Amino acid sequence: MKTDGAMKTVAEIAALVDGAVEGDGDVQITGLAGLRAARSGDISFLASRKYDAILADTKAAAVLVRTDWEGNSPCPLIRVKKPDAAMTQIALELAPEYPGATPGVHPSAVVADDVEIGEGACVGPLCVLEDGVVVGKGALLVASCYLGAGARVGEDSVLHAHVSVREGCTIGARTIIHDGSVIGSDGFGYDRQDDGSWVKIPQVGIVEVGDDVEIGSCTTIDRGRFGRTVIENGVKIDNLVQIAHNTVVGENTAMASQVGVAGSTVIGRNVQMAGKASAVGHITIGDNAIIGGNSAAHKDVAPGGILMGFMGRPPMAWKRIRAAQEHLPELLRRVKKLEQEVENLKEE
Amino acid sequence: MKTDGAMKTVAEIAALVDGAVEGDGDVQITGLAGLRAARSGDISFLASRKYDAILADTKAAAVLVRTDWEGNSPCPLIRVKKPDAAMTQIALELAPEYPGATPGVHPSAVVADDVEIGEGACVGPLCVLEDGVVVGKGALLVASCYLGAGARVGEDSVLHAHVSVREGCTIGARTIIHDGSVIGSDGFGYDRQDDGSWVKIPQVGIVEVGDDVEIGSCTTIDRGRFGRTVIENGVKIDNLVQIAHNTVVGENTAMASQVGVAGSTVIGRNVQMAGKASAVGHITIGDNAIIGGNSAAHKDVAPGGILMGFMGRPPMAWKRIRAAQEHLPELLRRVKKLEQEVENLKEE
Amino acid sequence: MKTDGAMKTVAEIAALVDGAVEGDGDVQITGLAGLRAARSGDISFLASRKYDAILADTKAAAVLVRTDWEGNSPCPLIRVKKPDAAMTQIALELAPEYPGATPGVHPSAVVADDVEIGEGACVGPLCVLEDGVVVGKGALLVASCYLGAGARVGEDSVLHAHVSVREGCTIGARTIIHDGSVIGSDGFGYDRQDDGSWVKIPQVGIVEVGDDVEIGSCTTIDRGRFGRTVIENGVKIDNLVQIAHNTVVGENTAMASQVGVAGSTVIGRNVQMAGKASAVGHITIGDNAIIGGNSAAHKDVAPGGILMGFMGRPPMAWKRIRAAQEHLPELLRRVKKLEQEVENLKEE
Repeated sequence: MKTDGAMKTVAEIAALVDGAVEGDGDVQITGLAGLRAARSGDISFLASRKYDAILADTKAAAVLVRTDWEGNSPCPLIRVKKPDAAMTQIALELAPEYPGATPGVHPSAVVADDVEIGEGACVGPLCVLEDGVVVGKGALLVASCYLGAGARVGEDSVLHAHVSVREGCTIGARTIIHDGSVIGSDGFGYDRQDDGSWVKIPQVGIVEVGDDVEIGSCTTIDRGRFGRTVIENGVKIDNLVQIAHNTVVGENTAMASQVGVAGSTVIGRNVQMAGKASAVGHITIGDNAIIGGNSAAHKDVAPGGILMGFMGRPPMAWKRIRAAQEHLPELLRRVKKLEQEVENLKEE
Repeated sequence: MKTDGAMKTVAEIAALVDGAVEGDGDVQITGLAGLRAARSGDISFLASRKYDAILADTKAAAVLVRTDWEGNSPCPLIRVKKPDAAMTQIALELAPEYPGATPGVHPSAVVADDVEIGEGACVGPLCVLEDGVVVGKGALLVASCYLGAGARVGEDSVLHAHVSVREGCTIGARTIIHDGSVIGSDGFGYDRQDDGSWVKIPQVGIVEVGDDVEIGSCTTIDRGRFGRTVIENGVKIDNLVQIAHNTVVGENTAMASQVGVAGSTVIGRNVQMAGKASAVGHITIGDNAIIGGNSAAHKDVAPGGILMGFMGRPPMAWKRIRAAQEHLPELLRRVKKLEQEVENLKEE
Repeated sequence: MKTDGAMKTVAEIAALVDGAVEGDGDVQITGLAGLRAARSGDISFLASRKYDAILADTKAAAVLVRTDWEGNSPCPLIRVKKPDAAMTQIALELAPEYPGATPGVHPSAVVADDVEIGEGACVGPLCVLEDGVVVGKGALLVASCYLGAGARVGEDSVLHAHVSVREGCTIGARTIIHDGSVIGSDGFGYDRQDDGSWVKIPQVGIVEVGDDVEIGSCTTIDRGRFGRTVIENGVKIDNLVQIAHNTVVGENTAMASQVGVAGSTVIGRNVQMAGKASAVGHITIGDNAIIGGNSAAHKDVAPGGILMGFMGRPPMAWKRIRAAQEHLPELLRRVKKLEQEVENLKEE
């Protein structure tokens, strides 16, 4: 909500999104929420017909629906062409405005002598910038960020609080990294000795993050053992994701939360990995592939390939196996019965 | 151990917990541990009869058992009504006391002009409090916390080091958040373009965390795309958990480590999600439901429902399927044999 | 690359690693990469014959192969005894040198009065050291670390930025902890009340991390409920791993990213847990056991035991079950046909 706390009526909101009110236009709207989560006073939206049953039970004060939607609603409606887009428009209108960051280096930041900071960039309080760091024009380091020696952050990028960008790693332009993420910690590489102990393999590469990337919070991307770990332009990575050393993530690939990718795997462009999906090391995942939630790619995936289920399988195979699994206990009984009957027939 | 390093004898500890010594009461106790992990000098406890075999092998110097426990022990026993509770009592007695935090704002903290700090609150070293932050009476920000513009922390809450509470998010009273957790980073929401690139959907909502909540370390809770992500009163969340945008987590629900919940899902009260459990987006999980470890809720779960196994199933179904799976290879052979026999019978 | 930016020729690199050039020795090398990820100018290596097909498609400017390797390459080769080791040698030679940390306490660090700091140790900018902290000789706290009251860090250990070591926890010698990891947050322990609410069980133990341990970024290790959580000497833990309270991890055990171990479990020596593997609480995993990726140990594992698949099974059992699963849908059809045929035979 705006800091002035102004509420809006259903009619006012309808005017804002060029929608048509159906029901009481004087109802007061004080917030926004999904249909399931809506409380009294919230406006919500019907994203798809499959949620019609949820609408019937919603506590929302008003709901945005498509112009041609037919059905019953427990509350006033606003008919619009695109309910989802209208919801975003309302959210932006009602959202509070936070004060912008002040360009320049906050006096509490600890900045080495030979750091280069672009015009209009903002180095927030308690950031640490080591030798040779370069911060591009208009970039924003919110607070308490750590940039190791020689790290580079491109123009107009934003690093939220407690982000680490380790020595030598580079972040492109217009890239956003959320709180607590770590770019460039050492990869997990050791040589095992005869006595069972491990000797560390030097991890002297870097991480190269492209332009227009977004990385969530508490995500970890390891530096190359040598050369680089690469996150190409336009990649979107959610929270708590692990990207191991020398991995390449291709342009516009999207990875949901808690995804894990092991070392030296090359992931193509426009790949989608759903929550908790994973890929073993040293494989290639082709462009446009999709790895379903909780599913593991354990060998190369062809371009456009789709994997689902534990130890990923093609979706039709997985659906058939999964359906068949439900019949397994019954199948055991049926086979036992068959064996008895065949035995009987043989004795006849 | 107390900072004075004083050891206690078995007899002294028995007196403390109102227990009866069986064996040598003069044995010195220098620490506490579980039966499996106990080293020489540790006192341990038998939580359940199912660990009797572990007791037989323990290295503990003494073990707390129930008054009516029967069995053999390699070490002295202390008989008490509730061994588990007695263990806690001993731990508290022997634990070191750490110096309390000093109320007030540490001089190294960076605090905006219009911040409101309640009586007895403690803003620790190197915290950053942006415009409009409110810290309740008696609250403790341990060190290096980041509170974005307009963030609010309720009375007597504790934020450990490196916690981020992003702009506009609210934390209730008596809530504890452990190190490195992030409340209010942006949700993972994009519109895909025809060329495969993604346009960010504004994430302008907040996170609303209730009273008496505890959140572990390196856990991430995303702000609403609009409105709010809600963690209701009494919720307990472990480490490395992901809660996506516009999720609602109902009162007293407990989530173990590495759980992941996708966006807009509504989780009821008293739900339990075990380690690495997950829920897809846009579903409802009813009150008192239980989602087993590694199990995924992929559609609505009824109140009191229990899911186990990959792609969660009811526990009896899962147990039968799992048992049947063990017979699968054998089943294949049996069916092949049947086919041969039927062929023979047909030829007769 | 060295900060002087000097490129090297294939011939110069061959001389460095005592290798024999096959092809154009004048080709310029500007970086290092795996075969899949290599770009123009990169040198790469063939780790195993199974990647021969990858070599055929590589964009690398030169490739290190074994002395006795036979095959075709699209680029110059350097023949060496151990391509993997040679790759490390080249990486070290070409890696930039970063300025070393300056011994002493950075003026921006916040250090309590009774802290003990060893000779040559470096307490970096914006670290917080509470009462009674001990930092060993030559140890390095990179920046913005938090050491709670009484925490101890051993000689020559390195804590990267934003690491928390909570009150009373101890870190051994020569141990490395990467950015954002949390040692000693409270374990997840509550007593459930009749009304569904949870009462916190005091977590007054510590974490005891041994010597020569390495812990990745954003990993969380909870303090004991009582006594200690133990990470023994030589253990290697990757990023985003969860170790719950009172767990013991034995010497030289290795855990890949996103592993989760529940409370009071005792893990032996030389155990290997692959990515996303997990173990439930209160079990014992024997020395030298291996838990495969995504696999869960749900009961005791014998020394040397190997688990694979969902709800871990021995590898041969798992492979047979997995293979059989592929035939499940077909099996259902075959059994149905058999039933019909037996019915026909009975009617005859």
